[in-house]
Amino acid sequence: MLTVKNKTLMENAREGLIEEAVVRAGLNEGVAAEDLARGLAEGVVVVPANPNHRNLVSAAIGRGLRTKVNANLGTSSGVSSLADEKAKLQAALEAGADAVMDLSIGEGVEEILRELLAMCPVPFGTVPIYQAALKAREERGSIVEMTVEDIFDSIERQARAGVDFITVHTGLRWETIGMLQSQGRVADVVSRGGSFTLAWMLHHQKENPLYENFDRLLHLARRYELILSLGDALRPGAIADATDQPQVHELLTLGTLVKRCREAGVQCMVEGPGHVPLDQVEANVILQKRLCGGAPFYVLGPLVTDVAPGYDHITSAIGGAIAAMAGADFLCYVTPAEHLGLPGPDDVRDGVIAARIAGHAADIVKGVPGAREWDRRMSTARKALDWEAQERLALDPSKVRAYRGRRLEEGECTMCGPFCAMKVISQALGGEKLTC
Amino acid sequence: MLTVKNKTLMENAREGLIEEAVVRAGLNEGVAAEDLARGLAEGVVVVPANPNHRNLVSAAIGRGLRTKVNANLGTSSGVSSLADEKAKLQAALEAGADAVMDLSIGEGVEEILRELLAMCPVPFGTVPIYQAALKAREERGSIVEMTVEDIFDSIERQARAGVDFITVHTGLRWETIGMLQSQGRVADVVSRGGSFTLAWMLHHQKENPLYENFDRLLHLARRYELILSLGDALRPGAIADATDQPQVHELLTLGTLVKRCREAGVQCMVEGPGHVPLDQVEANVILQKRLCGGAPFYVLGPLVTDVAPGYDHITSAIGGAIAAMAGADFLCYVTPAEHLGLPGPDDVRDGVIAARIAGHAADIVKGVPGAREWDRRMSTARKALDWEAQERLALDPSKVRAYRGRRLEEGECTMCGPFCAMKVISQALGGEKLTC
Repeated sequence: MLTVKNKTLMENAREGLIEEAVVRAGLNEGVAAEDLARGLAEGVVVVPANPNHRNLVSAAIGRGLRTKVNANLGTSSGVSSLADEKAKLQAALEAGADAVMDLSIGEGVEEILRELLAMCPVPFGTVPIYQAALKAREERGSIVEMTVEDIFDSIERQARAGVDFITVHTGLRWETIGMLQSQGRVADVVSRGGSFTLAWMLHHQKENPLYENFDRLLHLARRYELILSLGDALRPGAIADATDQPQVHELLTLGTLVKRCREAGVQCMVEGPGHVPLDQVEANVILQKRLCGGAPFYVLGPLVTDVAPGYDHITSAIGGAIAAMAGADFLCYVTPAEHLGLPGPDDVRDGVIAARIAGHAADIVKGVPGAREWDRRMSTARKALDWEAQERLALDPSKVRAYRGRRLEEGECTMCGPFCAMKVISQALGGEKLTC
Repeated sequence: MLTVKNKTLMENAREGLIEEAVVRAGLNEGVAAEDLARGLAEGVVVVPANPNHRNLVSAAIGRGLRTKVNANLGTSSGVSSLADEKAKLQAALEAGADAVMDLSIGEGVEEILRELLAMCPVPFGTVPIYQAALKAREERGSIVEMTVEDIFDSIERQARAGVDFITVHTGLRWETIGMLQSQGRVADVVSRGGSFTLAWMLHHQKENPLYENFDRLLHLARRYELILSLGDALRPGAIADATDQPQVHELLTLGTLVKRCREAGVQCMVEGPGHVPLDQVEANVILQKRLCGGAPFYVLGPLVTDVAPGYDHITSAIGGAIAAMAGADFLCYVTPAEHLGLPGPDDVRDGVIAARIAGHAADIVKGVPGAREWDRRMSTARKALDWEAQERLALDPSKVRAYRGRRLEEGECTMCGPFCAMKVISQALGGEKLTC
């Protein structure tokens, strides 16, 4: 039994009708449902709410809310299995991911999507063009043989299955490809869906099918309360390519499409880079917010250097923190395996934790309710040498337990032993006799 | 046979005499010796060069140079051994640390210092008050029983052994303690040396002995070409305490002491925070550079949140990158063990790598020669699917090897398999038939 609605969440919010998903998201986010509905009506907040995602716990992404973290999952050809993907989803959820995307592009993608969705209480995203490309390759020998119908069929199947948001590379146009070719880049295109789209356009000498058929896409999105995550096919994949003409031209297109989404009552986000040097990260956020009318900004990284494969959870945590401070709303994690291979469950966990650190560091200065207080409570526990509270308050208590088991004693820790500054100062300022 | 000089490196640089250590440091840094000598003369660059550190490979820290990374080593009471410390030093050097500090405060500190120095080609630092406090505790029952002579004796012994730079908590004054007490802090004092100094001052009701005897300290520093690293006893140890009155008052004092160092021909650096929210990191650097006449800034972190014990290499990489972009010259690593216990060799390695990532990300935008080119070479290798070059160019090749061994095939990687964006785009833009 599938649920199909006549009015979208956004349309109802504009008319003052606050749907249950918004009420529940408000409760979970710790903000008034009215505020959330206002943000939704304006298009600066999204509330994932595909009615077919039955076990979804309501949440929201956007202005004034806690910075959210997405974990990318998914198989690659012949490398990963359903069991592996379940283990990765479990790892992502345990580490505190706020959303996941299934980027599977191997055998049995429909089964994997169904199984993962069934065990996933957080918003769930996909890139439907992968499935269309896979099918075209299997049936007709090449990804460029996919048809417009294949793409829309894939979108509708995934929406019907309960996917809450989909990446659609709608901003890559003929004119943009011309810019890409004339300027030259170190790393050209690193978006997989973007590369499929570009290859299709060049092969058929036709405009981007999702740009050409954007109204049809909006129609589908309305049917399933599907959030369109407007993808950045031309996100820079090298520091040298950041904030260049093709990237900004694509963003201009996405800005116009944000308006069309809003006119159609369809929720949308905008995706962003990528590899960006430290001093351009804030500018990228300001640009997106201005050109896209404050639409939620979903960034992949940004990675602030190219040279640290094996540690890109760290390079992206640096960029992600700055981006989120500047206003990015949603951080797509990057795992230590990035640029090297498909991540395993440990990589997934490390990626989620690093992105959560970045998001929280930004939430402290964004003024997200409760963020600064969390740090204060931790530091108060630290000052009191209250290890139980420190463990409980830790972003990842399991890691604290691992270190405690290894080296912590009661009272002071092994870093300073009896020469603990916290203890010395408590005694000195308290007028007590020093115990060391 | 000890070497004692009449004129310091800085004095000679001012008179146009470029000593061998400066020439060699220039070669190693890839900058002209004349430029380095000019920075040294001005006090915006330091060249560690204790003649008694026989195996020192010359380097420099400061304006216009690659951001450097320090790794803290050292035993705690009864927890760690000489063998452990040697293993940690080895790990730090292999991971690419530019300097190390031995913060040992346990049994056999003199032997550990001697042994570590003998195997250490990078600049070597200590906090001599630790040894003075340890001795006072052993001989007279409490750290507050240390005398001014104990402190200077400890400094001289370590300088004679070959230490290149020492942290001295000279900025903590009576007036500053009053500010600390009247305003209240969540975490009071988290600097170990700072806590010893404060406890001593309160116990004896006397001014900071190193502030009072600063000329004597300068005299010693001249004798051994010792760099004074002016410590921040009141660095914030909690986000809530950042950039507060006591911290800034201490920095004001350090600014006046920088002038006295320069007048005496003594090289110095200034140490900085600590726990600092994202939006205050840049301000802290600007403040230090202004108040301390552009003296090299040596920051511990900064950590941009308190709540991630077990991952403070990441919280500090975020703050360190922003600090270095704003002008910080020298990053003291923080390991994942921070706030939990004494680090082991793996923690040391992870800490060094994370800090190097932060420093390099900043060097890209600071315009440090070669920094941006390194990223371009890596991305070019990535685009060419040249795995051998990617491994060679990686900040940590061993990590790339570990992942490669696990999951890399020839050509594409397991992330995308045949659907590699790099490959698809090369074929599509090159007008070739797609192989997928």
